[in-house]
Amino acid sequence: MPKRVDHEERRGQIAEALWRIAAARGLDGASLRDVAAEAGISLGQLQHYFTSKDDMIVFALGHIERLAQHRIHTRIEALPGAPTPRVVLRETLAEMLPLDEASRTGYLVQISYFVRAVHDERLRTHAQEGIASLRAFFADQLKTAIAQGEVSADRDPDREAALLIALTDGLSAAALMEYDSPRGALDLLELHLARLFSGAAQDTGGAA
Amino acid sequence: MPKRVDHEERRGQIAEALWRIAAARGLDGASLRDVAAEAGISLGQLQHYFTSKDDMIVFALGHIERLAQHRIHTRIEALPGAPTPRVVLRETLAEMLPLDEASRTGYLVQISYFVRAVHDERLRTHAQEGIASLRAFFADQLKTAIAQGEVSADRDPDREAALLIALTDGLSAAALMEYDSPRGALDLLELHLARLFSGAAQDTGGAA
Repeated sequence: MPKRVDHEERRGQIAEALWRIAAARGLDGASLRDVAAEAGISLGQLQHYFTSKDDMIVFALGHIERLAQHRIHTRIEALPGAPTPRVVLRETLAEMLPLDEASRTGYLVQISYFVRAVHDERLRTHAQEGIASLRAFFADQLKTAIAQGEVSADRDPDREAALLIALTDGLSAAALMEYDSPRGALDLLELHLARLFSGAAQDTGGAA
Repeated sequence: MPKRVDHEERRGQIAEALWRIAAARGLDGASLRDVAAEAGISLGQLQHYFTSKDDMIVFALGHIERLAQHRIHTRIEALPGAPTPRVVLRETLAEMLPLDEASRTGYLVQISYFVRAVHDERLRTHAQEGIASLRAFFADQLKTAIAQGEVSADRDPDREAALLIALTDGLSAAALMEYDSPRGALDLLELHLARLFSGAAQDTGGAA
């Protein structure tokens, strides 16, 4: 007869076993059996919670995101004064970069998820919801910054949010390849942010 | 007794079988045997050319990059007049975005490679060389643009090259998740390029 366990705790243990595999050798080819072994439970016990690798990855990603949000919140709370949109954006983006073990593991799980979502409509829909909510959060911060005169009114909040997130994704990839140092990736992000928060309207270039 | 075959041609056939698998269902879990079956050859024949999945992915990626360079060259040649740095950058970046089947497949193979390189130093070294050469090419174009007054002299060519490539990587990811349309991703890229090529020196923001 199975022992009574706290189901949320057990799910969390499984998610953490998945992260350890993602961080150590990647999820390519990792089976449910591998994850069960890493979590120290039987395959049958694992399948009580997750019937597929996709389900497990979706849960692990959600768990990672909640932890990341908690870390972002803690970072912002630790700063002196009321958080400005610039500080909120900077801290959130910095947390997305693989600058430490936790964010690096988060990024690796996300990549595994991404690779599977390309070929799976259900996973893709879930990814689209994630992108939409992150962009909306960033766009809101940018609207506030525009209202406060910190970002030029000729900037479009939705498009700037998309650019910021895309840039951070790409910088994360270069940092994971150990081409840019974590510090170097953060410097490049801050260069872009500094231009965005330069306040005054700028010539946006026009046609080539 | 094996038939005599053109070895380069055979390698190309194998690479193309790998791409078809990458495009159709992803390389996660795909074995040498799967690729041999897709290429219509035996596992033994495939192993004559590639002894590991990594070797095969490295070759397939090189093959993709040569084809992409050819497409970029053709695009630029087809444009009227001498190609300016802005045109060269725009066409190269647009080719990197997964806007059609060929560049989409290229991106998917690259992602599979990337995921493996995170955990493999040899693959990572290869990736670093690729990033270095792409950034150097972009930085050269930007130096010319600065000399011609098309890009402000206060822009650092190396850092701008890094930002352009990171941005394009991230926009590719959002396009593959079918969040941005191909046209939407290209519009965002062009917004960034238009600012970069606005000529006059800009306030770069400074500290928060």
